[in-house]
Amino acid sequence: MSLSRYFPILDWGRRYDHTAFTGDAVAAVIVTIMLIPQSLAYALLAGMPPEAGIYASIAPIILYAIFGTSRALAVGPVAVVSLMTAAAVGNIAESGTAGYVAAALTLAFLSGAMLLALGLFRLGFLANFLSHPVIAGFITASGILIAASQLRHILGIEAEGHTLIEILTSLWAHLGEINLMTVALGVSATAFLFWVRGGLKPLLRRFGLGPRMADIGARTGPVLAIVATTLAVWAFDLGAWGVAIVGEVPQSLPPLTLPSFSPELISQLVVPALLISIIGFVESISVAQTLAANKRQRIDPNQELTGLGAANLAAAFTGGFPVTGGFSRSVVNYDAGAETPAAGVFTALGLALAALFLTPLIHYLPKATLAATIIVAVLSLVDLSILKRAWDFSRADFAAVSVTILLTLIAGVETGVTAGVVTSILVHLYKTSRPHMAVVGRVPGTEHFRNVLRHEVETQPHVLSLRVDESLYFPNARYLEDQLATFAADKPELTDVVLVFAAVNEVDLSALESLEAINARLREAGIRLHLSEVKGPVMDRLKRSHLLDELTGKIFLSQHEAARELDAERKPATAPSD
Amino acid sequence: MSLSRYFPILDWGRRYDHTAFTGDAVAAVIVTIMLIPQSLAYALLAGMPPEAGIYASIAPIILYAIFGTSRALAVGPVAVVSLMTAAAVGNIAESGTAGYVAAALTLAFLSGAMLLALGLFRLGFLANFLSHPVIAGFITASGILIAASQLRHILGIEAEGHTLIEILTSLWAHLGEINLMTVALGVSATAFLFWVRGGLKPLLRRFGLGPRMADIGARTGPVLAIVATTLAVWAFDLGAWGVAIVGEVPQSLPPLTLPSFSPELISQLVVPALLISIIGFVESISVAQTLAANKRQRIDPNQELTGLGAANLAAAFTGGFPVTGGFSRSVVNYDAGAETPAAGVFTALGLALAALFLTPLIHYLPKATLAATIIVAVLSLVDLSILKRAWDFSRADFAAVSVTILLTLIAGVETGVTAGVVTSILVHLYKTSRPHMAVVGRVPGTEHFRNVLRHEVETQPHVLSLRVDESLYFPNARYLEDQLATFAADKPELTDVVLVFAAVNEVDLSALESLEAINARLREAGIRLHLSEVKGPVMDRLKRSHLLDELTGKIFLSQHEAARELDAERKPATAPSD
Repeated sequence: MSLSRYFPILDWGRRYDHTAFTGDAVAAVIVTIMLIPQSLAYALLAGMPPEAGIYASIAPIILYAIFGTSRALAVGPVAVVSLMTAAAVGNIAESGTAGYVAAALTLAFLSGAMLLALGLFRLGFLANFLSHPVIAGFITASGILIAASQLRHILGIEAEGHTLIEILTSLWAHLGEINLMTVALGVSATAFLFWVRGGLKPLLRRFGLGPRMADIGARTGPVLAIVATTLAVWAFDLGAWGVAIVGEVPQSLPPLTLPSFSPELISQLVVPALLISIIGFVESISVAQTLAANKRQRIDPNQELTGLGAANLAAAFTGGFPVTGGFSRSVVNYDAGAETPAAGVFTALGLALAALFLTPLIHYLPKATLAATIIVAVLSLVDLSILKRAWDFSRADFAAVSVTILLTLIAGVETGVTAGVVTSILVHLYKTSRPHMAVVGRVPGTEHFRNVLRHEVETQPHVLSLRVDESLYFPNARYLEDQLATFAADKPELTDVVLVFAAVNEVDLSALESLEAINARLREAGIRLHLSEVKGPVMDRLKRSHLLDELTGKIFLSQHEAARELDAERKPATAPSD
Repeated sequence: MSLSRYFPILDWGRRYDHTAFTGDAVAAVIVTIMLIPQSLAYALLAGMPPEAGIYASIAPIILYAIFGTSRALAVGPVAVVSLMTAAAVGNIAESGTAGYVAAALTLAFLSGAMLLALGLFRLGFLANFLSHPVIAGFITASGILIAASQLRHILGIEAEGHTLIEILTSLWAHLGEINLMTVALGVSATAFLFWVRGGLKPLLRRFGLGPRMADIGARTGPVLAIVATTLAVWAFDLGAWGVAIVGEVPQSLPPLTLPSFSPELISQLVVPALLISIIGFVESISVAQTLAANKRQRIDPNQELTGLGAANLAAAFTGGFPVTGGFSRSVVNYDAGAETPAAGVFTALGLALAALFLTPLIHYLPKATLAATIIVAVLSLVDLSILKRAWDFSRADFAAVSVTILLTLIAGVETGVTAGVVTSILVHLYKTSRPHMAVVGRVPGTEHFRNVLRHEVETQPHVLSLRVDESLYFPNARYLEDQLATFAADKPELTDVVLVFAAVNEVDLSALESLEAINARLREAGIRLHLSEVKGPVMDRLKRSHLLDELTGKIFLSQHEAARELDAERKPATAPSD
């Protein structure tokens, strides 16, 4: 029972049957065909040799199948994580060198180890600190960066850089070296792939395919583009015209590799590895939860960390680079009928066969085609509408999303995502440091109390009932003192202040000191301090302090009770003169 | 009117009269006598030449008198800021060198510029992020560090270090070089000063002095110790016995100095300067507010930033080092009858005279005596009871205070205070990421709803009313989804969910997406989602989204109204069978 919690394979494996096998096998064939070009393309994006992309899709898929909880998630290289890999490793070594490949292995190892540690200590909730606007902004900006970085392959020039400015400057500087034959190939491939997105599916349907088959058929577009352009290069010897090709790719199963554990390398990669782990986890879990919700299956976030951690360790020891659950590959897997993670294992087998037998066929594959598949894939991630939605909804969210987009573009992926998280947190802290407070009065005919400025309510002149709309803690403790002084200042007839604690979810030691100070100051002015609607957890806390002993007033269960009792105290004196 | 807001001197200066002058002049004489040993001692602590301590008390006091809002605050070198100066500058240059003095000037300049900038942009609220436990822990740990760092002067040995471990290791290593004559002097001075704290005041009262004069008389203890030990060194030529003395001190008014603006130096000092600014500001404003409260005067935090900023710039250009409002000197100033900041100006005049004429007299002053005055002063700051108070009140506060104390002691002042602030913030974020939620029911006979687990309340089987005890924002958005699923799971008869938003002070874009997802998921299960007690600011926000259009249920003003209406809907069907 508990063992299958940590090894989900024991759960679904026990009930594996013929139906599941058929579904999984069909899905695996389709996914394998789709993954070959995608893996090569993301290896190119990550700055790795093409075969690394295929290796990174074999062992990781198998490990995820054992430890992961999603039935349909397909693990391997994905666009954003490949971009982050290129940014992190590109700072340390030159792409194409042995040092670059070694650093990528170490990055995968660190990322795997961190994911495992996060899972072990049940720290999956940390991913929640990446707010929705930050993720949306980051993915959009990454898509733009990735598309820009691939332009050099379409233009057939050398260019580099990890920020939009660097990339565009470098492209501009090399613009004279443009290769027209490459441009012709690249632009045709891009145009074809854009057409495939919109036009191939209706065409296939007109030829009589069912909607599901037409959908899957449309996803083979990249394979068609690759076959056509590879044949063209081979037939017309376009290599001699300066078209860059993939070239020699070893025919081999994934090799056993050992990441470097040099302390210097590790210290350079530890921050990028953490960011890659968290971004990869967030991307993967969103895909997994979306697919699971459709079939009412359950995803355990902490077990997902274990699954992704194991997959990244597998990548580190088999010549890969950091991986995560990818959106497009998982959706294809799901649509093609995958029933269990066994589909992943079959896909891994298919890719292993490809690595052994098909690599000579891609010798003449032009890099421009791979770049075209990347550009078309990532531009679908770019969605600037999040800026408008955030602006309409709240300035705080807009600040977070715009900082994330801007800094990702001009300062790179690591700075961008970090700045986004930090901005979200700072904006939150700033807002809670100046909480909203409202003087409240009774909504006539009810026991309900509302803001005097927004509702027609009844108040008593000698009682100030102040609703504090925030937990009281150190950033706003002193602010409460100031505000209370302001509210109390222009009420000379005041005898009682009631703080309505309905929205106070916490009181820390700093706020306790402020409450004690307020109580003492009001006592000197001859005013009593009461509290109302104090919630259970806050009351438990206050009971452990001296505030309740020193409090000049009472604690009322409800604000209604407070108002009634403070009113009744007055009544005996004023009733005769009424 | 508005000019006197920025130059408070225009306000009190206009009404300056003979009574105020007498009070100020008397206070100035007493404070001057007390400040001479204190300034020398804190210069020693900061690693600066002794005269720098006096210089740092002259121009800064005058500038603060022009811009500051406190009537009694006395600005100059204080223990904690001097320790932080030694830690920051000690990383850059060797104490006793010209580079050390130059770096201290730059540190004062940066700190002054930052304080002015914080004041200009009205950022005084940033100081609130130093929670009470963090400040208390930091002051206590700094007191221990300072006392430990002065032991070498009492023992007459060379030792160094900026953390407790470094200091104790260094003391241990040099223990063989102990100078017994220095120990005799240092221990006597320390014992005398401890006795003065407790015993001198009653003695003076027995000799017929009034309580206030006895109090002030007791504060001259350090002067007595200095006179006695200086005479002893001079009369018995103790210098020849190896007793370290202050030596040659220039007879001069504060010199005009120019801080270094080397970019390298500035980049090394910018973080320490920020920490010194904020710690200094917090210490100063607490003292100012305590003294002002007694006389019902008002302190403007942002104007205080200007005052302290100007004082630090003055220190930077007149041979000083970072300064702030000190507790003991301000209390003496206040007790001695200071009426206005003019008392500070008179004190500055007194110290200028001392710098011109008295410095030859301190040639034979033993450093051990200065160390003794420091030790006795700072040990009164050490108060470990904050640990117990925090532990009793909340584990979060205890975490913040213990991290601050521990890291200040073992990793130094800058790391300590930063770690304390970061810990407070992280603990807060962690808590808000897993908010308390309570199923609520009606308290019988009222319109008030409370937690079903804590109170005897009435509920309806087909309605789940869930009170969310936290603002909904990105760290807890997904948690709400999970928790709602948990609460709803074991209620098959459920038709309506009411989220009680009384304690929800904010809804951000991530939480909005979660609410939309919850609404959609409940709709699929045939359950309506309602909100109740949504506060004005939150409602304004929700109106700008699509949630209200899509919401399957209603928005109720109060939870009472929600319960009544949902109950009434049922009544027609069930009434006949009742």
